[in-house]
Amino acid sequence: MAPIKLIYFDIPGKAEAIRLCASVGKVDFEDVRISRETFAEMKEQGALPYGQVPALDVGDGRMLAQSSAILRYVATLGGLHPSDPIEAARIDSIVAEEEDFFSGLTISRYAGRFGYGHMTDEFRAEVRKNLNDEILPKHLSFLEMLLTNSTTGWLAGTEKPSAADFVFVPRLKWLVSGANDGIDSDLLDGFPNVKALIAKMMALPEVVSWYEKNPPPQ
Amino acid sequence: MAPIKLIYFDIPGKAEAIRLCASVGKVDFEDVRISRETFAEMKEQGALPYGQVPALDVGDGRMLAQSSAILRYVATLGGLHPSDPIEAARIDSIVAEEEDFFSGLTISRYAGRFGYGHMTDEFRAEVRKNLNDEILPKHLSFLEMLLTNSTTGWLAGTEKPSAADFVFVPRLKWLVSGANDGIDSDLLDGFPNVKALIAKMMALPEVVSWYEKNPPPQ
Repeated sequence: MAPIKLIYFDIPGKAEAIRLCASVGKVDFEDVRISRETFAEMKEQGALPYGQVPALDVGDGRMLAQSSAILRYVATLGGLHPSDPIEAARIDSIVAEEEDFFSGLTISRYAGRFGYGHMTDEFRAEVRKNLNDEILPKHLSFLEMLLTNSTTGWLAGTEKPSAADFVFVPRLKWLVSGANDGIDSDLLDGFPNVKALIAKMMALPEVVSWYEKNPPPQ
Repeated sequence: MAPIKLIYFDIPGKAEAIRLCASVGKVDFEDVRISRETFAEMKEQGALPYGQVPALDVGDGRMLAQSSAILRYVATLGGLHPSDPIEAARIDSIVAEEEDFFSGLTISRYAGRFGYGHMTDEFRAEVRKNLNDEILPKHLSFLEMLLTNSTTGWLAGTEKPSAADFVFVPRLKWLVSGANDGIDSDLLDGFPNVKALIAKMMALPEVVSWYEKNPPPQ
């Protein structure tokens, strides 16, 4: 079987969780990184469900959309998604929390896509302040509590990392990377378990090896 | 085994998808409808993950949060979620699209929760206009296309209704119910397959029977 093809831009973004999960789960995949021009062409041709990336070409001519659905699929292929319904649901619950965690920030970045295109720079700056001072710390405290209750250091208490860990770690790294005006680079400092989670994932041999072969774009 | 308990307010909201799925899948569950006061108490006591409802008490003292995770779990219990990973992923993809579909509207309703508490009535009215005139029709056209390509009339092309159908039908009914200022009650008129989907679900014997026993609050 030809390997599945993950289609996304040459940035971590919404695809990095999938790339890391595939690497740790040893799922053979082609990491197709497209330009904005190719994206526009593919979108125009109707090749992308919902006109979005990431998309996964699963090899039968069908494209799978939505990063959380792709992530769960790849985790399943890699033996990293439990078949027990309640264990799977615990992971799904944390993956869904990632949407709540980031949706305010997402809309402040891609305002027009959500009906907020009339947002001024001043309005956006106030959103970022609210996120930084109140909303994001609240969500971080949820993660911190999950990790306090975990016996393994992974968010859902699984033996191996799960979709819950893969979806959060790259996004949290990006959140405090300086890419988001108004979000403090030391936002995670009050959340030692969250910082330990990031370090734990980044130290996995498969993740170290992945980044040796695929250095992030500068 | 004691039945699982679904905890939510006495409104359709984010729980109706789960109630309908449990009914169609013949999953025994207790439909616990709480007051705002009880919600505040439970939240204060830390009984609700992420301080949210819907929550599912799965009977071992553990609460499961996030409506999409609960829905997938209940669909699995009811034999309505396929075990084939790619079929499951197709459904997951549509369930995730529901988040994109509604996130602009959700933030315009619960602005403070997402860092948008400084939104004025005028700003909100413009969001609703953008949603009504542009964003929601775009998303509706995605659903219309999925249904055009479906041979069964269900969104993911499944034989029985799936989580994809359960998550969208009650939300679409609510969208055009008059509960959302600025959203036209005839917004679905240009999307006949979407209207047929709603009618198809509402005509299911289990759904008819559910609403006979549980008339929606007036």
